[in-house]
Amino acid sequence: MQVNEKLKALRELMKERGMSAYVIPSSDAHQSEYVPEHWKSRAWISGFTGSAGTVVVTLDEAGLWTDGRYFIQAERELKGTEIKLFKMRQPGVPTYSEWIRDTLKEGDCIGFDGRVFSCSQFKELDGKVKDKNIRIDYRYDLIDSIWKDRPELPLEKVYIHELKYTGKSTKEKLSMVREEMKRKGVGYYLLSSLDDIAWLFNIRGNDVRNNPVTISYALISMDSAVLFIDSRKVTDEVRSFLKENGVDIKEYTEIESSLRNINANLKIYYDPNKISIWLYGCMPKTMKKVQGKDIVMLLKAVKNEVEIENLRKCHIKDNVAMVKFLYWLDEAVGKESITEISASEKLEEFRRQQDGFIGTSFDTIAAYKDHAAMMHYKATEESQYALEPEGMFLVDSGGQYFDGTTDITRTIILGNITEEEKRNFTYALKGHIALCRAKFLYGVTGTNLDVLARLPLWEQGIDYKCGTGHGVGYLLSVHEAPQRFAVEYNDAVLEKGMVITNEPGVYMEGKYGIRIENTLLVTEDQLTDSGQFMKFEVLSYCPIDLDGVDASLLTDIERDWLNNYHKKVYEKLSPFLNDEEKEWLKRETREI
Amino acid sequence: MQVNEKLKALRELMKERGMSAYVIPSSDAHQSEYVPEHWKSRAWISGFTGSAGTVVVTLDEAGLWTDGRYFIQAERELKGTEIKLFKMRQPGVPTYSEWIRDTLKEGDCIGFDGRVFSCSQFKELDGKVKDKNIRIDYRYDLIDSIWKDRPELPLEKVYIHELKYTGKSTKEKLSMVREEMKRKGVGYYLLSSLDDIAWLFNIRGNDVRNNPVTISYALISMDSAVLFIDSRKVTDEVRSFLKENGVDIKEYTEIESSLRNINANLKIYYDPNKISIWLYGCMPKTMKKVQGKDIVMLLKAVKNEVEIENLRKCHIKDNVAMVKFLYWLDEAVGKESITEISASEKLEEFRRQQDGFIGTSFDTIAAYKDHAAMMHYKATEESQYALEPEGMFLVDSGGQYFDGTTDITRTIILGNITEEEKRNFTYALKGHIALCRAKFLYGVTGTNLDVLARLPLWEQGIDYKCGTGHGVGYLLSVHEAPQRFAVEYNDAVLEKGMVITNEPGVYMEGKYGIRIENTLLVTEDQLTDSGQFMKFEVLSYCPIDLDGVDASLLTDIERDWLNNYHKKVYEKLSPFLNDEEKEWLKRETREI
Repeated sequence: MQVNEKLKALRELMKERGMSAYVIPSSDAHQSEYVPEHWKSRAWISGFTGSAGTVVVTLDEAGLWTDGRYFIQAERELKGTEIKLFKMRQPGVPTYSEWIRDTLKEGDCIGFDGRVFSCSQFKELDGKVKDKNIRIDYRYDLIDSIWKDRPELPLEKVYIHELKYTGKSTKEKLSMVREEMKRKGVGYYLLSSLDDIAWLFNIRGNDVRNNPVTISYALISMDSAVLFIDSRKVTDEVRSFLKENGVDIKEYTEIESSLRNINANLKIYYDPNKISIWLYGCMPKTMKKVQGKDIVMLLKAVKNEVEIENLRKCHIKDNVAMVKFLYWLDEAVGKESITEISASEKLEEFRRQQDGFIGTSFDTIAAYKDHAAMMHYKATEESQYALEPEGMFLVDSGGQYFDGTTDITRTIILGNITEEEKRNFTYALKGHIALCRAKFLYGVTGTNLDVLARLPLWEQGIDYKCGTGHGVGYLLSVHEAPQRFAVEYNDAVLEKGMVITNEPGVYMEGKYGIRIENTLLVTEDQLTDSGQFMKFEVLSYCPIDLDGVDASLLTDIERDWLNNYHKKVYEKLSPFLNDEEKEWLKRETREI
Repeated sequence: MQVNEKLKALRELMKERGMSAYVIPSSDAHQSEYVPEHWKSRAWISGFTGSAGTVVVTLDEAGLWTDGRYFIQAERELKGTEIKLFKMRQPGVPTYSEWIRDTLKEGDCIGFDGRVFSCSQFKELDGKVKDKNIRIDYRYDLIDSIWKDRPELPLEKVYIHELKYTGKSTKEKLSMVREEMKRKGVGYYLLSSLDDIAWLFNIRGNDVRNNPVTISYALISMDSAVLFIDSRKVTDEVRSFLKENGVDIKEYTEIESSLRNINANLKIYYDPNKISIWLYGCMPKTMKKVQGKDIVMLLKAVKNEVEIENLRKCHIKDNVAMVKFLYWLDEAVGKESITEISASEKLEEFRRQQDGFIGTSFDTIAAYKDHAAMMHYKATEESQYALEPEGMFLVDSGGQYFDGTTDITRTIILGNITEEEKRNFTYALKGHIALCRAKFLYGVTGTNLDVLARLPLWEQGIDYKCGTGHGVGYLLSVHEAPQRFAVEYNDAVLEKGMVITNEPGVYMEGKYGIRIENTLLVTEDQLTDSGQFMKFEVLSYCPIDLDGVDASLLTDIERDWLNNYHKKVYEKLSPFLNDEEKEWLKRETREI
């Protein structure tokens, strides 16, 4: 079935239900960023495979809304379909809600599957259209009827994340949650995000590619904790581990009846960004509902001492794999036949040699030359380039380990690059260094600091159309809320123990792409009369390719930072390398 | 009557009305920052004279909430009273709403004068206390009954701000407003802010110290515009000028009946931050009310070409006065007897010599040595120091001219300063330069850029407890919304034509204070594939005291900026100076 045929089939169903527009977002029933195949309705109907985007279909039009990371990819993937690309946050481009409001007539009806729409998304859309008397019907998943070979929900086994890795037992975490519930004066707390649930119960699964989570819901009260999960995924060991920690298990589908039969005299707490409008609708109408930031999201963002110690070790292992890969690449390029995909596989092979490695934390972006201009490029057998000893090769990758999740990008100079490429590599590096070096008063957010990474590029009239960095989970999602470096407002204060990436870049469509990414840990700096100051500890130690650096553009401070960083790279990684690798690393981390 | 006696009298009235708490904010019936004497209830009852603060009185406690600019001053002024200082935004300090909620019992009543409380303030307080079943009664101005010698409302004459200064006629401005009303689908628009009203009608007054505004309300419909004002203030000339521009005049007090008798079938637009809860209560209950950012606030923030040309000229005049003052001070200090007050008077004298000068735009802050650690210090006959040829003298001042409003701070090195003082002067300067030099993508706000000014100080463990800069009016308020440089979130995009100050500083309690302030104009930089870039044009040209600068701490780029800035200072101002002044300025703007 081609995209336009699918749209036609969908429109038939829309007409039957009296719907003038149908919305298909990216998310699953748990508002996940990465979703199991079963829930990839938006990719199925549109052919656009990026991680973020929303499709809206009316009876005679269709549009895809996605952000700057995906403009180039979306244009390519939508070619030949009737779906029009709407570039989010560009001047004059309406949001999909605005577009629906302006396109539909009074009295029309919008449809979507309420399971994959958060309360906040519902409210946003409803707020835009209700003045025009446009109705919303979220009862039907129309895609389900036309997607004949839709994959089943995964049934991967759940395993325990041991205390030596987590630092806190499930019991301890539940009591932290209940303290917060007490403070908020609520009797229940509903969870739907898969990473929150995995963190809270110290369990992991394998239901979502690159994300060690298990599809489930959870409902916590002051004296009970229920995990709603397909029981086929739960071994006896996990069952008794959870029982010991005071967690009961019910079937995944029982969340509906549990919510309908809840004690409606108590208040329930939920995060409208995480709970679907369908779940909301399952709660008794009379029940008092308190909305706010998810409790577990805030607790898990601040890594504890055990997690931090593990993260440091885990990053060293990951960086050793990176250096072995870089050394291999340096030796092999121009001699062996290497492609974007075979390079990715080689890198995964080096990671696989590391203790406690489980898998990649996202699909490796191995993008040579102009492919790297696509921020989230994914090489295919058809698209991929063979690497030559020239130009730049961007590799953005990460691993899932029992002791943490990693995310690192290096842009590797394979041979000659232009003066412009070298200059822009250096400006991206200047921004990266500025953010690594930042000292800041406690209380600020990533919105306050983002400009530090962006300024050297802005001075050149260059901007990257994405945030500068995101939170990272702990054997969980590589994109973890709430902290974030971005121009857009974000109210998450950078707390001691938070982990966040620093990844400025340059993306020249059709030409080249540059990104330099390390993962940072928020730590305390000095306490003065002005208050508590904070700084970052770099967790990633891996050489930054000096062949890309125009040292004349660096200040003394930047040069010192780079030399000092490279010195530490050598100190930390050389004990794990063989003589050839060591010698190579010595050269790559030389003083400039 | 002493503060504690006033509190006692207030409590008697509170008891009569059954109120357990009474709130006295800083503002007047127009949510002004600077208020006529008549409305200075908060200063009258507490003795605290800063421009921002809220007093809450319960039957046995009293507190003042103010921000970092005023901590030192408030502590001094509250001494000997029972009023406790609550330092806003410091860790662990509740807001006044939280404090009231925690202090009062269920069923208690809070009182305040609804005329001086905005809708937003009402909503914030109500939101905090309604769960605890605490009532609000905003009908009574209790202070009025105990403030026996309360000043009357001022009756200063209104004058016309001519087209050669404003660039747009009242008619044109009204049609801009009505276009925006059409876009919002409303039939009425209610204004209460005095500077918005003055801008819209091209009139000015003299009702508020330093603020050329006139006390009034305004109500705009698609075919009428009504100014509510005490008719004794309106000359025949102004009356016919307004009539020609389609503006009717009604008495100030008639706003109430006009609102009560409005056509309730139309929608009315208002800004909840600007309209009082009392005004809101005057509108018919059944009328549809649309709230949002004030229309005029956004229009007037973006200066037009005529205003910009005038502003450039006006700043030169103001800077000439500054340089004459600095030269005089340099010659006279140590020889003549000079005090903080006499120096301020001398500076005003130089401003008065300038064409089109009307008065100061705020009370000059002339603060010597440790006085300068108080950000908004105001010298009195009792407090003031005599200036000696040593230490630092901070002068923050500005003027109202027919062609603009100015605001500038220089910290003058009168003689020996310590190494620490010199270092911190230099770090403040580094921050100032970084913000002046910033290039940024269109779409960012002052929240994104604030860190540039703060970072060099943060690196030293120093923070200033205030924003980095504020918008400036045009022959209007020296603090003009909505744009602002601050850590706190502000959603006003920096638009071409906005004016904003850049004033990082160092405030060492009991020791010294440093602030370097220029006023900036937002302009366009290059348009590239990444979008429209923006930059700042400095409007203030006045030497920065090189005796405060430790050049070894400056980067080459910073040094170049300073030398280039000083070169322009000389070029722009020297034509208006006598030979001695010129020679002095040459020295002061020497290359380093």
